[in-house]
Amino acid sequence: MKYDSYLELYKTKTFESMNLYFKSREIFPGGVSHNIRYFRPYPFFTRKARGKYLYDVDGNKYLDFWNGHWALILGHSPPRVTQKLVKQLKNGTLYGTVNKDSLKLGWEIKKAIPLAENIRFCSTGSEATMYATRLARSATGKRVIAKVEGGWHGFNTNLLQSVNYPYEVDEGLGLIEDEGHFVESLQFNDIERSLKVLESIKDDLAAIIVEPVLGGAGCILPKNGYLQGLQEFAKNNGSLFILDEIVTGFRFSYGAAMNNFNLEPDLFTLGKIIGGGLPIGAVCGKKEIMKLADATIEGDKSTYCSIGGGTFSANPMTMKAGFHTLRTLRNDRSIYDKINNLGEFTRIELSKLFDELKIRAEVTGIGSIFMIHFLNDNVKAINNALDAALSDKEMLNNYNLALMAYHGIFFLPGKMGAFSNAHEKKDSIKLLNATRDIFENSKYINFLEKNDKNLVF
Amino acid sequence: MKYDSYLELYKTKTFESMNLYFKSREIFPGGVSHNIRYFRPYPFFTRKARGKYLYDVDGNKYLDFWNGHWALILGHSPPRVTQKLVKQLKNGTLYGTVNKDSLKLGWEIKKAIPLAENIRFCSTGSEATMYATRLARSATGKRVIAKVEGGWHGFNTNLLQSVNYPYEVDEGLGLIEDEGHFVESLQFNDIERSLKVLESIKDDLAAIIVEPVLGGAGCILPKNGYLQGLQEFAKNNGSLFILDEIVTGFRFSYGAAMNNFNLEPDLFTLGKIIGGGLPIGAVCGKKEIMKLADATIEGDKSTYCSIGGGTFSANPMTMKAGFHTLRTLRNDRSIYDKINNLGEFTRIELSKLFDELKIRAEVTGIGSIFMIHFLNDNVKAINNALDAALSDKEMLNNYNLALMAYHGIFFLPGKMGAFSNAHEKKDSIKLLNATRDIFENSKYINFLEKNDKNLVF
Repeated sequence: MKYDSYLELYKTKTFESMNLYFKSREIFPGGVSHNIRYFRPYPFFTRKARGKYLYDVDGNKYLDFWNGHWALILGHSPPRVTQKLVKQLKNGTLYGTVNKDSLKLGWEIKKAIPLAENIRFCSTGSEATMYATRLARSATGKRVIAKVEGGWHGFNTNLLQSVNYPYEVDEGLGLIEDEGHFVESLQFNDIERSLKVLESIKDDLAAIIVEPVLGGAGCILPKNGYLQGLQEFAKNNGSLFILDEIVTGFRFSYGAAMNNFNLEPDLFTLGKIIGGGLPIGAVCGKKEIMKLADATIEGDKSTYCSIGGGTFSANPMTMKAGFHTLRTLRNDRSIYDKINNLGEFTRIELSKLFDELKIRAEVTGIGSIFMIHFLNDNVKAINNALDAALSDKEMLNNYNLALMAYHGIFFLPGKMGAFSNAHEKKDSIKLLNATRDIFENSKYINFLEKNDKNLVF
Repeated sequence: MKYDSYLELYKTKTFESMNLYFKSREIFPGGVSHNIRYFRPYPFFTRKARGKYLYDVDGNKYLDFWNGHWALILGHSPPRVTQKLVKQLKNGTLYGTVNKDSLKLGWEIKKAIPLAENIRFCSTGSEATMYATRLARSATGKRVIAKVEGGWHGFNTNLLQSVNYPYEVDEGLGLIEDEGHFVESLQFNDIERSLKVLESIKDDLAAIIVEPVLGGAGCILPKNGYLQGLQEFAKNNGSLFILDEIVTGFRFSYGAAMNNFNLEPDLFTLGKIIGGGLPIGAVCGKKEIMKLADATIEGDKSTYCSIGGGTFSANPMTMKAGFHTLRTLRNDRSIYDKINNLGEFTRIELSKLFDELKIRAEVTGIGSIFMIHFLNDNVKAINNALDAALSDKEMLNNYNLALMAYHGIFFLPGKMGAFSNAHEKKDSIKLLNATRDIFENSKYINFLEKNDKNLVF
C-alpha cells in the first residue's frame, strides 16, 4: 500500500467525485440535498447501482450496506420489480387520480398487518409522521406528543425535536419556540423516567410516538417491557400509541415489528420498503381514528382532519414498485430467513472479532440490520441514543472511510447497515475480513487514532 | 341520449370504478389518498395514461386537462423522458447518495432561473414550502409568516391556514392553536388591506409567501402592482419575500413566473414540472439565505437550519425525469408558444361562448392554465380566492361531470385545467363544442340547475 492513509487513498480513488463535489457546493448548501449524505472528506458520486453494489463516477465499486436508506430490501433494481416498472413507465407515472394500483398495495399491507385497518398514502416518511401527529391530536383533542430522545421521524416541524445530542438544544435555527412547546422527550429504555415524564404531561398528552427499534439514532433495541410500558400508559391515559415503522415495517418479517414485539399501536407509519425504491410514506391505523381523515362527508372543514395526500401520493410507479416488492417477499419467505441469518451471523462474528482484537465495541441490531458502536470510558454499553451519541463516532467514521477506501465496502458513515436479498454470506465474510485487516494493520490503526479532522473544503 | 342525466350516464359508464371505489373506502379514508381526488358520485379509476389521455378501468378514455395536478407539461409518458427512465430503472432508483443527476438538474434550473443561486431538493411541494418557511425564520430571527387567503402551500403544519373558505376557521381538526398563531392572512389583490395587515405585524414578520398565480384557489391572476407591493414591503421591512412557484415554475416560459411578473424573491419553491412526473420539491434562493442549510460546517446544531432532504430526495429517477423534461423544453421553445396559444385561444373562445349563451361566467388564467368560474348574484368577477369560493361551484362540478360523462373530457372537478405539449388545437375545439352542447341542450341544463347532491355513498 503506497498511500500513507485511507484518507489519501480515498481522495486518490475518487478524483472525479471531488471535482463534482466542488461543483455541487456551488449549487447545493453543503453540496448535498440531505445532510447525512455528506461525509468527510467528501462523498463519492454514485453513477449507477445494481443488486448489492454502488458504482461511482471514478469507476470504483462498493458493496452497499446502506441500501438506499435501508429501503431496498431486495437490493438495487431487482429484476421483477424493474420489469413491472418498465411497463408502467409507458403507461403513465402520475395519473393524479385514484387507481387500482393503490388499492392493490393497500390490500397487500392490510392483509399483512391487520392493524392497518385504514391507510393513507403520502410521498415521504416525514409527511407520514406529521399526519399521524395531526390525527392523534384530532382524535384526542389533546396537544402534547411524547417522543424519545434520538427518535427520528423526519424533518417535519411537528417532530424535529430532541433528535441529536444535546437533546435539550433546538434542532437548528428557524424552529420557533412555540413549535417545540408541545413535544416532550422521553429517555429510550428507561421506563421509570419515561413514565415519570408522561405522568407530568398526562392531561394534555395526545400521543406517544416511537420507533420499535431506534434507527437513525443507532440501531438500538428496546429492552423487554419498555415499549409495552409506553403503550400501556397511553392506553390507560386515553392517549394514542403511535409506532413509527418506517424503517422496521416489512424489515424483519412479512408484516410489521409490532408483531415481533407484540404491540398494538393505534396508529403507525410506514415508508421505505413498502415503496419498493420509490418515494412513499403511509399513515395506517384503526378505522375509528383514520376515518377522521375522510373529507368526503358533507360537512364543514371543522369536521375532519386535513392530511395529505399530495400531488404524488399513490402514483402508479410507487404503487407498483411497492406491490411487487411486497409480493416478492410474500411469495418467498425464505428471503427473511436468509437476511435475518446474515444479520445474526454478522453481529456474532463481528463481536467475536472485536473481542479477539481487544477493541471495545458493541454490535447492535436485530434481523437484517446492524450497527457497530465503538465504546469508550464514557460509554460501556449502548442502551439509548445518548450512549450511541457519546460513543467513539470519530473512530466509527474513520473505520467506515477505511472500509470504503481500502475494501470497497459502503456504510453511510456513522449509520447502521442492512442486508438485502442481493447479499450473500460471502459479503458478510468480506466485511469481517476487511474489519480484521483494518484493525490488525497498525498503519491503519494509527490513522484511526489520529482523529484526522482535516476537511478538504 | 337514452339516459336522463349525466349522473346516471356516468354511473353506467363507470360500473367497475364504482365497485373499486366501494373497496377503496374499506381501506382508505374517503376512498382516496388525496382529498381532492374524490368527486361526486365517485371518481373513476385510472388504468393507464398516455399523452393527453387517461384510460379508466371500464374502458372509457378521457381527454385530460388535469395532467397530474398540472405537473405533466409534456403530457403522460413523453417518449424521450420515458426512454431515459427505462434505462435508469435498471441502474438503480434510489442510491441514497449524492449523484451527478442531481447536479445536472440543479444546473439546469440555475441556468434558467438565476435567483436559484442555491437549491435544495426534497420530495414534495409540501416539504419545500415548509423548509422555505423555516429558512425564512432562520434568516430573519422573526416568526410570523404572511400568506394570502386561499393560498395553497401543501398540507404541512406551518402553512395549512386560511386555505378554504371560511378562511378564519381552522383547516380541520388537529391543528393546535399555537401552530396557527404565527401565520397571518392577507387578501389577494387588495394591496391596501394587505399592507395594513402587514404593517400591524411588521416587527415579527419573517416572510410573505405567495403564489404568483393562485393555483388551487382557482387560477387567479395578480393585479398589476399587487405582488410588487408585497415584495416592496418585505424588502423594506427586512422580511423575506417567498414565491411559491410549484405550479408556475417552467409553466409559462423556460424559467419561473418571477420573470413574467418582474419579481425578485429571496426564496422560492419549485415542484411538479421540474420532477418530470416523479415526486419532487425544491427550495431555491439567494446563497446568503440558503447557506444557512449547510450542515457540513463543523459546529453545533444551533449554527444551521435543519431542513430535508429525506430518503428519496435527489433520487436518480426523479432527477433524470426532471432533467430530460427541462431539456426538452429548453431545446424546443416552440412548446411554450404552442401551449400558451392554446390557453389564450381557449380562454377567449370560452368567454365568447358563455357570452353568446348568456351564461354568467369568467374564464381566468394565463399561458397554458385556465379555469371557468360560474358567476352569480354574489360574485360578479373573480379577483381573489373568496370570489372563486362563493361562485357557483355546484354548477362547475356538474359541468365537469357532464364533460366526463358525455364527452370524455376530464378536469378534476372544481379545479383549473392545463394544456400540455400533447394537446392540440382540436382538443380546445372539442372542449368548446362539448361546452356548447352541454349548455345549449336544455336537458343538461335542467340537471345543472337541479343541484343534485345525491351521493352514492
